[in-house]
Amino acid sequence: MSDALAQLKQRLTKVTDLERVAGLLGWDQQTMMPAAGAEHRADQLATLRRSSHELLTDDQTGRLLERLRPLEDTLDPDSDDAALIRLTRRDYDKAAHVPADLRAEMVRAAAQARQIWVKARAASDFQQFLPALERNFELRRQYVDCFDGVEEPYDILLDDFEPETTTAEVRAIFTELKAELVPLIAELSRDDVDDSFLHGTFPIDRQERLAKEVVTLFGFRPDTWRLDPTEHPFAAGAGVDDIRITTHYDPASIKSLFSTMHEYGHGLYTHQLPRELQRLPIGLSCSLGIHESQSRLWENLVGRSRPFWRMFYPRAQETYPEQLRGVDLEDFLTGINRVRPSLIRIKADEVTYGMHIILRFELEQDLVNGRVELRDLPEVWNERMREYLGVEVPDDAHGVLQDTHWASGHIGYFATYLLGTVMSVQIWHKVLEDVPDLEEQIERGEFGSLREWLGEHVHRLGRKFPPQETLRRATGETIDAKPYLAYLREKYGVGVPA
Amino acid sequence: MSDALAQLKQRLTKVTDLERVAGLLGWDQQTMMPAAGAEHRADQLATLRRSSHELLTDDQTGRLLERLRPLEDTLDPDSDDAALIRLTRRDYDKAAHVPADLRAEMVRAAAQARQIWVKARAASDFQQFLPALERNFELRRQYVDCFDGVEEPYDILLDDFEPETTTAEVRAIFTELKAELVPLIAELSRDDVDDSFLHGTFPIDRQERLAKEVVTLFGFRPDTWRLDPTEHPFAAGAGVDDIRITTHYDPASIKSLFSTMHEYGHGLYTHQLPRELQRLPIGLSCSLGIHESQSRLWENLVGRSRPFWRMFYPRAQETYPEQLRGVDLEDFLTGINRVRPSLIRIKADEVTYGMHIILRFELEQDLVNGRVELRDLPEVWNERMREYLGVEVPDDAHGVLQDTHWASGHIGYFATYLLGTVMSVQIWHKVLEDVPDLEEQIERGEFGSLREWLGEHVHRLGRKFPPQETLRRATGETIDAKPYLAYLREKYGVGVPA
Repeated sequence: MSDALAQLKQRLTKVTDLERVAGLLGWDQQTMMPAAGAEHRADQLATLRRSSHELLTDDQTGRLLERLRPLEDTLDPDSDDAALIRLTRRDYDKAAHVPADLRAEMVRAAAQARQIWVKARAASDFQQFLPALERNFELRRQYVDCFDGVEEPYDILLDDFEPETTTAEVRAIFTELKAELVPLIAELSRDDVDDSFLHGTFPIDRQERLAKEVVTLFGFRPDTWRLDPTEHPFAAGAGVDDIRITTHYDPASIKSLFSTMHEYGHGLYTHQLPRELQRLPIGLSCSLGIHESQSRLWENLVGRSRPFWRMFYPRAQETYPEQLRGVDLEDFLTGINRVRPSLIRIKADEVTYGMHIILRFELEQDLVNGRVELRDLPEVWNERMREYLGVEVPDDAHGVLQDTHWASGHIGYFATYLLGTVMSVQIWHKVLEDVPDLEEQIERGEFGSLREWLGEHVHRLGRKFPPQETLRRATGETIDAKPYLAYLREKYGVGVPA
Repeated sequence: MSDALAQLKQRLTKVTDLERVAGLLGWDQQTMMPAAGAEHRADQLATLRRSSHELLTDDQTGRLLERLRPLEDTLDPDSDDAALIRLTRRDYDKAAHVPADLRAEMVRAAAQARQIWVKARAASDFQQFLPALERNFELRRQYVDCFDGVEEPYDILLDDFEPETTTAEVRAIFTELKAELVPLIAELSRDDVDDSFLHGTFPIDRQERLAKEVVTLFGFRPDTWRLDPTEHPFAAGAGVDDIRITTHYDPASIKSLFSTMHEYGHGLYTHQLPRELQRLPIGLSCSLGIHESQSRLWENLVGRSRPFWRMFYPRAQETYPEQLRGVDLEDFLTGINRVRPSLIRIKADEVTYGMHIILRFELEQDLVNGRVELRDLPEVWNERMREYLGVEVPDDAHGVLQDTHWASGHIGYFATYLLGTVMSVQIWHKVLEDVPDLEEQIERGEFGSLREWLGEHVHRLGRKFPPQETLRRATGETIDAKPYLAYLREKYGVGVPA
């Protein structure tokens, strides 16, 4: 029996290693690879993912899982071994439905589409991107068709990013959010806030220096982390001691700083995953939603807070004297927290952000279910941006082409951003309960207690439990939109609606 | 039958992809990876190489090769398919002797040892490196033991880098070289040449600019190539359109420029390998010796030549006016070609270079055959440097720790440097025969004909034939020390010995 477990672990170690290598190749593709290398990369990623898929879905995995049923029944369900068997059974059952050829083709097509998207976005030309996008969606339709008796096709896609979470559950939370966000945005949107100092001249070398300074305060260490520029920021890592975050410097805006803090949050999660389990699937991150709860926590609850800027604002002023001399802390805080509907998701303020996600979540379902055709996407996108946020989209680059996700084959992913944002507030409240002087610590530039709390209560759980169980263990409750909405109202000084 | 061939190709495509990914991970390890990532990298490389090893040595490969025997007999032996079957049979027969666990452990131990070597070299402390080195040698002994009826154990190691080439064959050439190099070095070593201008202040940003300029003249294109700094220069690539060369800038010396030209030669070879065969083993490079013939050709026969510097010297003077103003072209040429026994192989002149290699080639055999103990290595190294080159080694960093090869598990590799150097001259003579105005072209900064000749006569052959057959097809002859020795004598104006 323990022999079967050892064999299973050995097999899963290989699967995990190959997946991590694929992750590193993705990082390389977006930061280092010469453009002409895209075709090789598509082939190589397809081979890697095919190999890990074949290892996982091999009949031998199924036989080992069967042989392990009696052992599983005797184990403490919270133990690592029980969680490993349970999780592997779930992964195996889902993957075994999918032919290796389809899995490889999904990966190859996505890697190719990503390069096409980079060019199409630069040219702001959706038509150039359309065939590759159609291919990605067609392959996801084939993927969904591998499963029988599916209630909502979108469930299958969503589950890849937020396991054991249904479209209906997400829809319920998003409906609740939408009902309050729409009036809140109307109430809070202000044109009379002067945030002109946030736009102007921010030399990239100084941005790089300041970004490094911030993440170093947070806990970035150069022997374990990298920070590199890229087109569309993301975090990756080849293991707990090889963490790679990226950012995109806009020489006319200070906002990359918040994106860097965001990616730091992702990086810290990966860095604090359980070291002893890191070559097994239970040692990976829990879900994209939990991941996002970590990035949004560092970006918003730390990075846009008064305590943080009380400590750090002098450094920002020293770095950008032309921009920030004469701007006092309160004006700066008002500026970086200004609510105003805008075009680009990753630059959105905390209040309007949710509507960017809800739009994408609804649109993805319309696309998957055939209610909207891909060729009509720019038109539908622009219409809904007008409807949800009241903004006019000037071109595809600032509209439907802004995100890399559909190019990269990540269809069903966007919802996790808002789920994570909502959960970040629940987690933050719990940290404040356990570390009452957290804000004073932040004001002193001390982040050790926060890192430790997150490590102990969230990160160390890895992928042992589904996201909602992970959140429950960390905070005592499952996802709830109310604390998030209350946080927004409190932050912006708005009363509870009658 | 054609079905068996298709199956074989599909399997080999996966093997090749995995090997290329491992190559890219090696590049990342030496240029980008945070130091703490070394343990992950060792695990991941071991898993990758194990996976490709298992795919290659699977019984199914053997069965397919058996089924293909009748087809092979009907094919033109020069055809791609015949070469593929022949080469795969050779690879399979060799790899099938080696257990996957040993293969994986060799890779893991080497990746770990490399990190230890970096630190040990920085500290100039051989003792710190000794246990990792012992592990690498012990694993190579186990590797050699996998093969029966071996005449010389070293043959097995050498063959991994220079296939179908025996220790005895190399020894014969090296004996011939040594007999002439020793008196030539004595005759040519000069202390009266002033090359002080080659040492001083060469700001790294200017070195980077000049290196980019040179390789761009040669044929480097930024959409296909990268050039990055590293500890110990090397070339890598993820495919014909993703070429990565590296260099090491010493702020006190101009010499990294020659090392960059060297790596360009490696990169060009990889870039011009047969595109249509690039995911099959016959599409890879032929041998390390042939590889080195390309790098040494660009470094020495182009890069240290009068035609090249007639064209490029003004740019070097503009770049380093403090160093080179007032140094005329002939003095510069004499300086960069000065013969003087020295400590570091990769900085050695063309005449003394061979002795650095012969020392390593002999020493490796002494180590593998147990005539020298690893713990005595610094002492023996220093003795032989005194004997072969008349230099006193001041510390391990400038002695036995200077090269990465033994750390990286590349035992049996060094000989290929001198084989390649010898072959580079034979190839050069043949290019001059076919392109009589080559030197005029170089003086005009035109390298297209040279690139094309090398592509057509050497690179496009890939790994279809063993190295000596490749050389024979390119030049009409197999390896011969005489043209190389004649070239040295001519270059330095020394008559044929009586």
